[in-house]
Amino acid sequence: METTITVLEKIKMKNPLLIEGLPGIGNVGRVAAGYLVSELKMKKVAELYSPHFLPLVILHEDSVAHMLKCEFYYCKGKARDILILTGDTQSISPEGHYEFCEKVVNYAKSVGVKEILTLGGFAEGKEVADPKVIGAVNDKKLLKKYEKFGIDFGKDHQIGTIVGASGLLLGLARMQGIDAACIMGETFGMPLMTDPKAADKILHVLTKILDIKVDLSKLEKTIGEMEDKIKKSDAIHKSMLEELAAKPQKEDIRYIG
Amino acid sequence: METTITVLEKIKMKNPLLIEGLPGIGNVGRVAAGYLVSELKMKKVAELYSPHFLPLVILHEDSVAHMLKCEFYYCKGKARDILILTGDTQSISPEGHYEFCEKVVNYAKSVGVKEILTLGGFAEGKEVADPKVIGAVNDKKLLKKYEKFGIDFGKDHQIGTIVGASGLLLGLARMQGIDAACIMGETFGMPLMTDPKAADKILHVLTKILDIKVDLSKLEKTIGEMEDKIKKSDAIHKSMLEELAAKPQKEDIRYIG
Amino acid sequence: METTITVLEKIKMKNPLLIEGLPGIGNVGRVAAGYLVSELKMKKVAELYSPHFLPLVILHEDSVAHMLKCEFYYCKGKARDILILTGDTQSISPEGHYEFCEKVVNYAKSVGVKEILTLGGFAEGKEVADPKVIGAVNDKKLLKKYEKFGIDFGKDHQIGTIVGASGLLLGLARMQGIDAACIMGETFGMPLMTDPKAADKILHVLTKILDIKVDLSKLEKTIGEMEDKIKKSDAIHKSMLEELAAKPQKEDIRYIG
Amino acid sequence: METTITVLEKIKMKNPLLIEGLPGIGNVGRVAAGYLVSELKMKKVAELYSPHFLPLVILHEDSVAHMLKCEFYYCKGKARDILILTGDTQSISPEGHYEFCEKVVNYAKSVGVKEILTLGGFAEGKEVADPKVIGAVNDKKLLKKYEKFGIDFGKDHQIGTIVGASGLLLGLARMQGIDAACIMGETFGMPLMTDPKAADKILHVLTKILDIKVDLSKLEKTIGEMEDKIKKSDAIHKSMLEELAAKPQKEDIRYIG
Repeated sequence: METTITVLEKIKMKNPLLIEGLPGIGNVGRVAAGYLVSELKMKKVAELYSPHFLPLVILHEDSVAHMLKCEFYYCKGKARDILILTGDTQSISPEGHYEFCEKVVNYAKSVGVKEILTLGGFAEGKEVADPKVIGAVNDKKLLKKYEKFGIDFGKDHQIGTIVGASGLLLGLARMQGIDAACIMGETFGMPLMTDPKAADKILHVLTKILDIKVDLSKLEKTIGEMEDKIKKSDAIHKSMLEELAAKPQKEDIRYIG
Repeated sequence: METTITVLEKIKMKNPLLIEGLPGIGNVGRVAAGYLVSELKMKKVAELYSPHFLPLVILHEDSVAHMLKCEFYYCKGKARDILILTGDTQSISPEGHYEFCEKVVNYAKSVGVKEILTLGGFAEGKEVADPKVIGAVNDKKLLKKYEKFGIDFGKDHQIGTIVGASGLLLGLARMQGIDAACIMGETFGMPLMTDPKAADKILHVLTKILDIKVDLSKLEKTIGEMEDKIKKSDAIHKSMLEELAAKPQKEDIRYIG
Repeated sequence: METTITVLEKIKMKNPLLIEGLPGIGNVGRVAAGYLVSELKMKKVAELYSPHFLPLVILHEDSVAHMLKCEFYYCKGKARDILILTGDTQSISPEGHYEFCEKVVNYAKSVGVKEILTLGGFAEGKEVADPKVIGAVNDKKLLKKYEKFGIDFGKDHQIGTIVGASGLLLGLARMQGIDAACIMGETFGMPLMTDPKAADKILHVLTKILDIKVDLSKLEKTIGEMEDKIKKSDAIHKSMLEELAAKPQKEDIRYIG
Repeated sequence: METTITVLEKIKMKNPLLIEGLPGIGNVGRVAAGYLVSELKMKKVAELYSPHFLPLVILHEDSVAHMLKCEFYYCKGKARDILILTGDTQSISPEGHYEFCEKVVNYAKSVGVKEILTLGGFAEGKEVADPKVIGAVNDKKLLKKYEKFGIDFGKDHQIGTIVGASGLLLGLARMQGIDAACIMGETFGMPLMTDPKAADKILHVLTKILDIKVDLSKLEKTIGEMEDKIKKSDAIHKSMLEELAAKPQKEDIRYIG
């Protein structure tokens, strides 16, 4: 079994921009992506399943079980169409991250994506009064393009790495000739703590880049509504990792080697 | 090498219901499934082996070694036939769980299964005087069908996830268009402690669903007889996990990187 | 890359018996197998390499580096030929054990092996004055055959499992219709401590089974000579496992998720 | 996805010698290899990517993200051409090391490499005033050839193993009929501490072997310039390993098995 993208609807897209927002630090990327999907009334066009996710099902609405999955949502845009990748989880193994991102880039290429934006949080390790938006690109030529949107490219921050899908997608996209940038909101970075402020900052930048108008006044309210789902998935990851990391106690059992 | 199901006998089944009961919390699923296999005098029709099981053999009857395996048992039923999946173990790796469940669903589909019931224990973390039966389904439409059998679907319990085969089978079955429900008995959830009371509750519900009569009076006795085998397999898992988790002590050895 | 057996010489063997003796508890199996190879002046006929071994080379004679490997040795016997599998190491991953043993059984089958004996130590966890030889088989019918050689099949010992190649080979051989038994010498079971007494006991039983005469008086001396090589490989496993288990210290580095 | 070498330029090489210098103890190999690449103005001819590297991108020059990768550099030499393998990282899984090294040896063979030199540090665990150069070979016949360059082959050091690419390349090269030696500089072996002295010693030996003149006076300065990049990659490995090793705290979450 390997990571699989199931296309629900084949759509001829017009120069689509792919935006990735998956669970991570402060849930910034996931919350921002989820808000756009909801506000733009986007339509699900594909689902991604992976054996590199946690081996469990998550229960929603009245005990109905669902596979952990990621989803691609689509809508027509002004200048170009928008495709959003969001979901329940990321890979739990290093090789799984590579497989996941490779499949995403291949799918993106197959529907004509020439530019990717990945969203995330940047853990400051302390309270952030006025979070900034920090960025990284996968080609120097993109710096000029994105700087004008108020993204800080390493002037105040010396970022060494970007871990997980938000980072690897930049690298793998480059190998396929696809431009990509990562947009991160400064946040405390405490586990299990969603940060609406950082998500709000990212959405302001994102709507400018997309040249669309989105009512951001409902963000906090929507996050409140998403909280239940998010808390559940955070708790899952935490309890499952506990499970996997659990060290059994010693007992007097003999075995043969 | 990958997870393999060896079919021992090809049988034309009549609308078979697949019931899964593997080792887990309180051994509830395994004990309930094992009791049905024994009471209904079911016949083994397939065996499943996997490189994702512990790398060892288990010794039964006078030092005879056996691979860890799972088994499918079959019998004719009144309205429809019954197929039971039980066994020594579950996968020890996350990806292994996915591979295992995918193979099971594929086999189930190949013999005409259109409905799956998975059995398990629900860990309360405390003594349960009168265990309830709690459930989850893989499609909302199934709630009505199963509620009438006295299964609690999330009214008293907010279950977030179902880990392992009992959960993943629901998710993967859905992807193949197969209806499935998980039936769990409330139990303490102490490791290495089989809970006959929870298994008894599950069997009462299960026989109602199957519309069959099974003498449940011998359950405690049978569990007593199964205990030896169960204890052994529990001990195996524990000692092996210890082995794998064992941290070697430091020693003054030089190496080159 | 996967586990590979490189055949150095194709030999038409006469009803060969395969004997496995790899590193393990008390190094009993490895030492016994190594002594036979040396005393019977057996000839290397195949080598086995695996990506599931530790990722390192071992240095012998004046800084010459060698891959970790296992080796098959062959000699003509009286009633039937003998094939011995011994080597530097076993797999370090659970799935690797399955792959390793599957390749061994396939190779054995390809050269006409119909019976396998695996050798090992049985950890008593305390000093053993007069070590016994304990056994397990992969088919009930073999008990009678081996009991007459003074092997204890579970009368005094309740063995639950046999971990690693000595065990899995029994299980996988059965699946291919090959008879197999495991012969274990009682030993303390301290890590990094080779037990010549247990190896001696096993060799006495083994030579009776093989109906050959082997001068066992040199065993302690030979083990002394093997010690250097054995200590090195024990140390390797220990230092490497330390390496893999090493927990990095915390440091104030920021990253993005 | 698997380890992939992308050839940027196909060059007909004249009896090329492959030199490997990757991150490791004291960064000795990487620094020595990097200095040669820079001093000899070598040209990049191939890149290697692997899903067995850490799942992240590394940021250089003004927030531009790059995949972790290894690189092959080429230049014409006097007697024979030189090919250097250096890079950001090594595999993080045991099987990954085997896959990585197998791909490297296959590529080396395809461009006509008949000899490989791997570079590394040898951890003394204490301050080394005058570091020596220690060696290992993959065939006894090579000892004489390399001893004349002042490499110590086990007279003062009893090395047991060589872990990682510097070691495995020797073993895998032998299996393909390629001669190889490992050249190590004695160093303290503290994590995150680059040792220019050990690298200098290795370069002195290496230039003698290659029979080339390289200005080594700028080594410390160059290492100073490389430090930023090296520190970053060291920090990455450290923080990522922390991440992977992080044990989640207990919390009162119920789950089902």
